[in-house]
Amino acid sequence: MEEQIRIGIVGYGNLGKGVELAIKQCEDMQLVAIFSRRKPESLGIFDKTIPVLPISKAKEYQDKIDVMILCGGSARDLPEQGPFFAKFFNTVDSFDTHAKIPQYFEAVNQAATAHGKTSIISVGWDPGLFSLLRTISEAILPDGKTYTFWGKGVSQGHSDAIRRIEGVKAGIQYTIPSNEAITLVRKGERPNLTISDKHQRECFVVAEDGADKAKIESAIKTMPDYFLDYKTTVHFISETEFKEKHSQMPHGGFVIRSGQTNGNNNQLVEFSLKLSSNPEFTASVLTAYARAAYRLKQEGQIGAKTVLDIAPVYLAKKPVTTLRSEL
Amino acid sequence: MEEQIRIGIVGYGNLGKGVELAIKQCEDMQLVAIFSRRKPESLGIFDKTIPVLPISKAKEYQDKIDVMILCGGSARDLPEQGPFFAKFFNTVDSFDTHAKIPQYFEAVNQAATAHGKTSIISVGWDPGLFSLLRTISEAILPDGKTYTFWGKGVSQGHSDAIRRIEGVKAGIQYTIPSNEAITLVRKGERPNLTISDKHQRECFVVAEDGADKAKIESAIKTMPDYFLDYKTTVHFISETEFKEKHSQMPHGGFVIRSGQTNGNNNQLVEFSLKLSSNPEFTASVLTAYARAAYRLKQEGQIGAKTVLDIAPVYLAKKPVTTLRSEL
Repeated sequence: MEEQIRIGIVGYGNLGKGVELAIKQCEDMQLVAIFSRRKPESLGIFDKTIPVLPISKAKEYQDKIDVMILCGGSARDLPEQGPFFAKFFNTVDSFDTHAKIPQYFEAVNQAATAHGKTSIISVGWDPGLFSLLRTISEAILPDGKTYTFWGKGVSQGHSDAIRRIEGVKAGIQYTIPSNEAITLVRKGERPNLTISDKHQRECFVVAEDGADKAKIESAIKTMPDYFLDYKTTVHFISETEFKEKHSQMPHGGFVIRSGQTNGNNNQLVEFSLKLSSNPEFTASVLTAYARAAYRLKQEGQIGAKTVLDIAPVYLAKKPVTTLRSEL
Repeated sequence: MEEQIRIGIVGYGNLGKGVELAIKQCEDMQLVAIFSRRKPESLGIFDKTIPVLPISKAKEYQDKIDVMILCGGSARDLPEQGPFFAKFFNTVDSFDTHAKIPQYFEAVNQAATAHGKTSIISVGWDPGLFSLLRTISEAILPDGKTYTFWGKGVSQGHSDAIRRIEGVKAGIQYTIPSNEAITLVRKGERPNLTISDKHQRECFVVAEDGADKAKIESAIKTMPDYFLDYKTTVHFISETEFKEKHSQMPHGGFVIRSGQTNGNNNQLVEFSLKLSSNPEFTASVLTAYARAAYRLKQEGQIGAKTVLDIAPVYLAKKPVTTLRSEL
């Protein structure tokens, strides 16, 4: 049997759990250890035989792990963990604070380059696969416009905002791409669209007993930045229905490049995702890029990379000759 | 001003014309010469200042052209031209005889490697972008099925078959992806579908005066391999309508990967193209990959490549730091 790529997971929230599941689908990979700040018993990991260790012990695994998949958050975990782990391991992460990507890239690149490691940052679907599709389709159709729509999916920030309103017991918000806007773009019309033209917001709320529902609905719909500029609908439901129907984490979206070749012909490139579980899909993307990080390092291609630097062959388990025969 | 990438075109049919148009949209490129077997006057090229030369003169342009875009056909031109031009130039081509790609790759690779050139073969959308999307989405969702649908678009082979029937003056065939099949796949059902389950065939026919239309329709619908297994519709139209409405070359298609992550969640990745002009779009893809061929050669990455070997950064005109800040 071929040797397996040895993977470690840092951070075991929804994303880390997803990576554990994704590795099980990859015969060429093996999960060696999970590193977490929390107590092993509290994590609920799927495979109880996997050692769970405090993050401080990670360094001891330098020779036992080929790629460390960093599953912490972009706000507080990764700015520190990214450059730190890049000194000891090849890494993959899903850093997604758009405005800070160049500075995060520099920090990780410095650490990885100095220590001969390969790190792929900002992996996932946006940033990630969507970035890749935007770059490729803009290169092919330089005269055109790119549209990104998000949803249908849960927005954590908007759900939190609903839950802070007086009288709300539970609440969730789905961002929904506007069908009218998508239809217009697919027709090749290339309209100018704001983010609120492109999206609607649908809220499901469980009200406290005796709460004023009209007041809650108005508080949501008039909330500046979050809801005011959007077509927003509010549904009041029972706590039972809420638990039954709204505990999943679906998401998705569309990237559409609408362009024109020089003979005045409209050309449309569309990429879309419809995900029943956002964290499990993002984890699957990270896992595929872990394979790429391992191979790039083997080839001596060290330093920080993004998805734009990775040729598709590095992601696939299949050998390149097979891929070529299946082109 | 930065130096432009100097491009040559070999073969000036619909694809070559499309490349001439595509280069006009790329400020970083310049068309140096067109090589053709036909007489310059007969080509109808857009920019009359571009020199048109016989293919035998191409070698004299070794120092004047950075990348040669080979626009000949896969059946008769490329098997010879691909390995030949790879000795003298970096090349890009759209070789699309699926079964022969590995052997074509070897021939071009040998020539390019021996002469220190970079050649990207089988560029376009299928093989090409569709191959890229199939490879990436299968790597991310190893447990799943991939579906490719073609259309709505003109099939040259099927149109020719119609025109060979007695009593047919003109005819065209559109391959149409089955909505029922696409809907089923998008639901995440992962059915087993044959190529005839996935596609329907729509024919527009101009009959000769006095021809037996019922007989023509039956001849089409019962033609083995081409139409028999498909849901086929035949419309008889006038020659005027035929010329007005059926002189375009639209095409397109869908690649859908329907997979399941290990938590039993359905995940759907979809890529689609809706093209008003198939040759102009394919030409735009070739032109973007010419930029990649030029840069790879500059980096010393020689030999034959396919789209699977090319990282997205090589396609974009924008510098990598800009791309990264726009992730």
